[in-house]
Amino acid sequence: MKTKQAESVESQPVAVEGAKDVQIRWLIHGPDGAANFHLRQFELAPGGHTPRHQHAWEHEVYVLEGGGSAVSAQGERAISPGTAVFVEPGEVHQFRAGPGGMKMLCIIPSSGK
Amino acid sequence: MKTKQAESVESQPVAVEGAKDVQIRWLIHGPDGAANFHLRQFELAPGGHTPRHQHAWEHEVYVLEGGGSAVSAQGERAISPGTAVFVEPGEVHQFRAGPGGMKMLCIIPSSGK
Repeated sequence: MKTKQAESVESQPVAVEGAKDVQIRWLIHGPDGAANFHLRQFELAPGGHTPRHQHAWEHEVYVLEGGGSAVSAQGERAISPGTAVFVEPGEVHQFRAGPGGMKMLCIIPSSGK
Repeated sequence: MKTKQAESVESQPVAVEGAKDVQIRWLIHGPDGAANFHLRQFELAPGGHTPRHQHAWEHEVYVLEGGGSAVSAQGERAISPGTAVFVEPGEVHQFRAGPGGMKMLCIIPSSGK
């Protein structure tokens, strides 16, 4: 068993095209022995957003603090603490923080990134 | 994309031997189209606990509110909001709530339950 406090895990900028003011912490991943799925924490500054993109793997998201919106081809939905979001494989998606920023968890299969 | 508020998802008692005062909400699972891993929210009343058991699949846990301890063969560790826990496949484990109860997320592969 491994335990770690999220704030003790290195926070790295998400340096991909289309991302703005987003940090990521890899809470549980390959080096921990996690073979199937990985748990990451994202912190979006006010007005920050992830890239609008799509990929072959799914996301399972849980909003921890703050809020904003989740964007898909169907439009934009408000999300807030306690909102769970399932992004299907292949679906266009983006997460946008509101004026208070947003902290959320995002789980991906180990084949994702 | 599917979004749902955790509190709107049915809360069910965990009715397995060794569990005490634990409720579960299946936030994202098979009926949502989640083929690889499932996101559940657990709510433990003060003094409640999950069974002390082991199984072939891993757990990835994130404590949301309250706190308590995570027990393994190596002993008992305090956990609190923001603690991430990785339980390896086959490892004996138990989660125990302190006097304030505990709310946590637990992700399992779709082969688990």
